[in-house]
Amino acid sequence: MLPAKGYAAHDAHSPLVSFSFARRVPGPRDVQIEILYSGICHSDLHQARNDWHNSLYPMVPGHEIVGRVTAIGAQATKFKVGDFAGVGCMIDSCRTCPSCADGLEQYCENGATLTYNARLRNSDELAFGGYSDLIVVDEHFAVKISPALDLKAAAPLLCAGITTWSPLRHWQVGKGQKVGVIGLGGLGHMGIKFAKAFGARVVMVTTSPEKAADAVRFGADEVLLSTDKAQMKKHAGSFHFLLDTIPNGHDLNPYAALLRRDGTLVLVGALTELTPPLVGGRLIGGRKSIAGSAIGGIAETQEMLDFCAAHGIAADVEMIDIQQVNAAYERLLKNDVKYRFVIDMASLENAA
Amino acid sequence: MLPAKGYAAHDAHSPLVSFSFARRVPGPRDVQIEILYSGICHSDLHQARNDWHNSLYPMVPGHEIVGRVTAIGAQATKFKVGDFAGVGCMIDSCRTCPSCADGLEQYCENGATLTYNARLRNSDELAFGGYSDLIVVDEHFAVKISPALDLKAAAPLLCAGITTWSPLRHWQVGKGQKVGVIGLGGLGHMGIKFAKAFGARVVMVTTSPEKAADAVRFGADEVLLSTDKAQMKKHAGSFHFLLDTIPNGHDLNPYAALLRRDGTLVLVGALTELTPPLVGGRLIGGRKSIAGSAIGGIAETQEMLDFCAAHGIAADVEMIDIQQVNAAYERLLKNDVKYRFVIDMASLENAA
Repeated sequence: MLPAKGYAAHDAHSPLVSFSFARRVPGPRDVQIEILYSGICHSDLHQARNDWHNSLYPMVPGHEIVGRVTAIGAQATKFKVGDFAGVGCMIDSCRTCPSCADGLEQYCENGATLTYNARLRNSDELAFGGYSDLIVVDEHFAVKISPALDLKAAAPLLCAGITTWSPLRHWQVGKGQKVGVIGLGGLGHMGIKFAKAFGARVVMVTTSPEKAADAVRFGADEVLLSTDKAQMKKHAGSFHFLLDTIPNGHDLNPYAALLRRDGTLVLVGALTELTPPLVGGRLIGGRKSIAGSAIGGIAETQEMLDFCAAHGIAADVEMIDIQQVNAAYERLLKNDVKYRFVIDMASLENAA
Repeated sequence: MLPAKGYAAHDAHSPLVSFSFARRVPGPRDVQIEILYSGICHSDLHQARNDWHNSLYPMVPGHEIVGRVTAIGAQATKFKVGDFAGVGCMIDSCRTCPSCADGLEQYCENGATLTYNARLRNSDELAFGGYSDLIVVDEHFAVKISPALDLKAAAPLLCAGITTWSPLRHWQVGKGQKVGVIGLGGLGHMGIKFAKAFGARVVMVTTSPEKAADAVRFGADEVLLSTDKAQMKKHAGSFHFLLDTIPNGHDLNPYAALLRRDGTLVLVGALTELTPPLVGGRLIGGRKSIAGSAIGGIAETQEMLDFCAAHGIAADVEMIDIQQVNAAYERLLKNDVKYRFVIDMASLENAA
């Protein structure tokens, strides 16, 4: 085994603390990655605090991982030692079901193995995530990171990036369409950048007027304040597509009213109950759809990273040391981050 | 004006009673139709009783109308006197918006004019529906009924038929797909017939085991009892498409679990709050969609009627006299109808 260190949550109520554990020695198809940067996703907070009632402790969060390949297995061919590599939300899947065959491992019909808060496939061992100094994964679940990318700003692409890219691509968002991005956080700011890059007219839909200037900087053509009834009425029935990045249950009815006929709202963050309840007539009157989308497959993650390298797209990040992770969580709870925290894993050297 | 008679509700709590009123003399583009048969839609009951809080009285319900053309306007070219004609849920629309231009008058962006419980376009006059002896409408909103069809059994095609046909066609349901029809009433029994005719494998999803034999007779390959958790689990993740005909708010979560990846559930009946609330993760895990669909446009209604004539498809009906309409409403409340009541309008002769 390889000695590893990181930061872990030991229960739902205590802060994350320094944690020593072990990683496996690379198997024939594995790559070993020295983690340089690890983004902080809102779901890290949800899971560290057991908001979804499925937390496994000790938990080393982190699924926006960028690093350098330091070893490869005998049969691994995708990387060379010294390459930059990324690991996102998944480290394994069944590889045989129709979804895996379609390159959509996130919808693996036997359940994808998540990067943390999970057990390794066919094992009782816990999977530990990116708030650590190294990781060992099957090369299929590692993606190539172009040296043209700013590595720090590339880390959030592994979750915030692919989670917004995948639905925008799947629903073919592009030129001639009016697209709304609901919520300006880690996901929302990537959603604006991608929708703009695909040629859509992009409207930032937010409750926070102070975010308007940043939204425009990311590429929004307009900002719609969702608390302003007159503005909401003016935009009613006008959106082809809404990317809803709100990370908690919320009222879909006002947003459904924004859709034009045959328009679709896609949830990417809200896993829990959507209250108050949706009113059926909101969809029936206009043949509208509410859909959901989860992260993205490995092939489309690579495609997204290559697109970002070619178009100079990355996340806007606030760098922190690992010792600041608990304070960062508190700020995240208040949406006080512009727009993604990324941990400089070199700071682990100083860990207590 | 033309003297007309029918049956009307005068408030939310009293039975429908005999009612005399007036229809307009046909204008240049109008057709005048002697009503032979009028189907009873569940929405007639909702509206007569003001369930949707938008009822206008006196109300002559009825939007599944089949009759014989008795007069045409000078510029009307679609019908000859003596032709059979149908009128469905709409009698007018703006004719100029993008939805009207696309032949989807039901989504008219200026609001389609409904056949009853509405005011005539650009007028304060109430629109009176099909529980009457004649109707006068713009020929665009009348459809041709082939003499090959059983006229009685064709009446429900004007609402129950087109409401199920339109989403099955729009979402391209057909061969190689497993399709569920939720609820076996007027809409559901047509949904089974159409989905089967389009080549899908059809599963009737119902709470009523006693309806299984009829479902199979209509073309269902299988019956899934939604109250049986083991059966629901067996079918989880297996449906390409679900046509949800339940006419009231209900829990979508168990049905969302039945969808496979990229599957869609389409609501056609439930206009009100869907409680308990939908859980976002039900859609996110599997890129699933919940959509709505309203009746259908005039062109697709004609296409559906022509398909029914060619394939020998019609509704299964229970004929009643107009004097039985209030008793029929009580039976409808108990889902006690196989599978659509149709009023023989000749019975109006005997009206008090």
